[in-house]
Amino acid sequence: MIAIENLGHIDAEAARLARRRYRAGNAEPTSGVAPGFTQANMIVLPRDWAFDFLLFAQRNPKACPLLDVSDPGSHMTLLAPGADLRTDLPLYRIWRDGKLAEEIADATTAWAERPDLVSFLIGCSFTFETSMAEAGIEIRHITDKSNVPMYLTNRACRPAGRLRGNLVVSMRPIKASRVADAATISGRFPAVHGAPVHIGAPEEIGIRDLSKPEFGEPVRIEPGEIPVFWACGVTPQAAVMASGVPFAITHAPGHMFITDIPDTAYHA
Amino acid sequence: MIAIENLGHIDAEAARLARRRYRAGNAEPTSGVAPGFTQANMIVLPRDWAFDFLLFAQRNPKACPLLDVSDPGSHMTLLAPGADLRTDLPLYRIWRDGKLAEEIADATTAWAERPDLVSFLIGCSFTFETSMAEAGIEIRHITDKSNVPMYLTNRACRPAGRLRGNLVVSMRPIKASRVADAATISGRFPAVHGAPVHIGAPEEIGIRDLSKPEFGEPVRIEPGEIPVFWACGVTPQAAVMASGVPFAITHAPGHMFITDIPDTAYHA
Repeated sequence: MIAIENLGHIDAEAARLARRRYRAGNAEPTSGVAPGFTQANMIVLPRDWAFDFLLFAQRNPKACPLLDVSDPGSHMTLLAPGADLRTDLPLYRIWRDGKLAEEIADATTAWAERPDLVSFLIGCSFTFETSMAEAGIEIRHITDKSNVPMYLTNRACRPAGRLRGNLVVSMRPIKASRVADAATISGRFPAVHGAPVHIGAPEEIGIRDLSKPEFGEPVRIEPGEIPVFWACGVTPQAAVMASGVPFAITHAPGHMFITDIPDTAYHA
Repeated sequence: MIAIENLGHIDAEAARLARRRYRAGNAEPTSGVAPGFTQANMIVLPRDWAFDFLLFAQRNPKACPLLDVSDPGSHMTLLAPGADLRTDLPLYRIWRDGKLAEEIADATTAWAERPDLVSFLIGCSFTFETSMAEAGIEIRHITDKSNVPMYLTNRACRPAGRLRGNLVVSMRPIKASRVADAATISGRFPAVHGAPVHIGAPEEIGIRDLSKPEFGEPVRIEPGEIPVFWACGVTPQAAVMASGVPFAITHAPGHMFITDIPDTAYHA
């Protein structure tokens, strides 16, 4: 993993252009956009809840690997100087009392409701997909141009203060002969969820029907393929719901924040 | 890295016995004690400062890799069920208004001053020394039975809230032919400081005299050896001083908390 301070010379033009389109109102998913640049999950909470969430992330690092945390009241991040977290994601979710209140392409108005919001940017498994694809492992939701399927499991996260909730996982069907490679390659990216948390046996983690993900879209599973599950950065949204958090802003699943940081920076 | 929840079957008798000796009053350094069990740096802060420190750790992960954070008011840790953080380290430092007030073998009285203390346990480079030694790399301070030398550098940590300070590094002299191996092997342990932050050229990071470390003891450097510097978990103590933190309890340098977690659990 390379320190952010040492990445000053990277030309992040593709990432900047993508963010500009989203700022202008484009609300499309980010899969495949600005390839090579790390995409991040986001959750924004009032200062009063930020300590609990920071602790929740520390205690559940596979689901919530923190890439950056803003100062209270700031909408900037080191991961993309010049970006505005209020406008530069394609689609936001506004949460009130643990319930999804609104999906919206610009969070400026909601952001202005609270003076002390803290933004958390969390690693996304999209980052290791490029390495897996380069090793000849098919990423089904990319082939099929759909959103990755995500499931709420029966595995409780380690609680922190007022925050609790179950783990959310993303799933990729992988040929049985390449499952070990997928585990090894993703394991080299611990800052973006790392190795799978579960391989095969979906019922063991409370997933009854792979064709009905709680988030994203279902994908084809071909004979000889094993469902492989990775901890997912949507886990904080499940915690917002389970804990009745009074106010939060998040990305909409699949609609990530595109940073200026190359994926390779998160290679262990 | 292996999830703590999956380590239930490890027999940690050696770690438990060591902690019992320290609880009974033994105040000796922990280097070489309970080999194979991870040792941790500790800093304990009032809840009011805990958010700032959690953010400081997130922003300076090479210096402050968090292994566990307690709930406010608790003196327990998942890393060693049954341990008492107030008594089970050999030697503590009590800090008041950014100054070292006392070194003491039992922190129970100081701990009772505040009802809401949060304990942070931070990875220690002792964890990867075993792997380096097994690869035939001499660890000089182990050979010479001294404490590892630690230096305050001129490199500013990324500040967080009211916390700021410069990076502290530990130094091991390594034969030039083995420096790359030392970097590779320690790099496999990102949760315990990982790869070196600086190799050779001590003056570049503000170290004028290797024979005068700010913490620990100096070590012999033989011809053909290069000083190799790793981020150090004493960095929080430098931040306590630089930031004038009103109250903190830490371990005394070299007098670590011995956990029940095997070193191998932190191998990437």
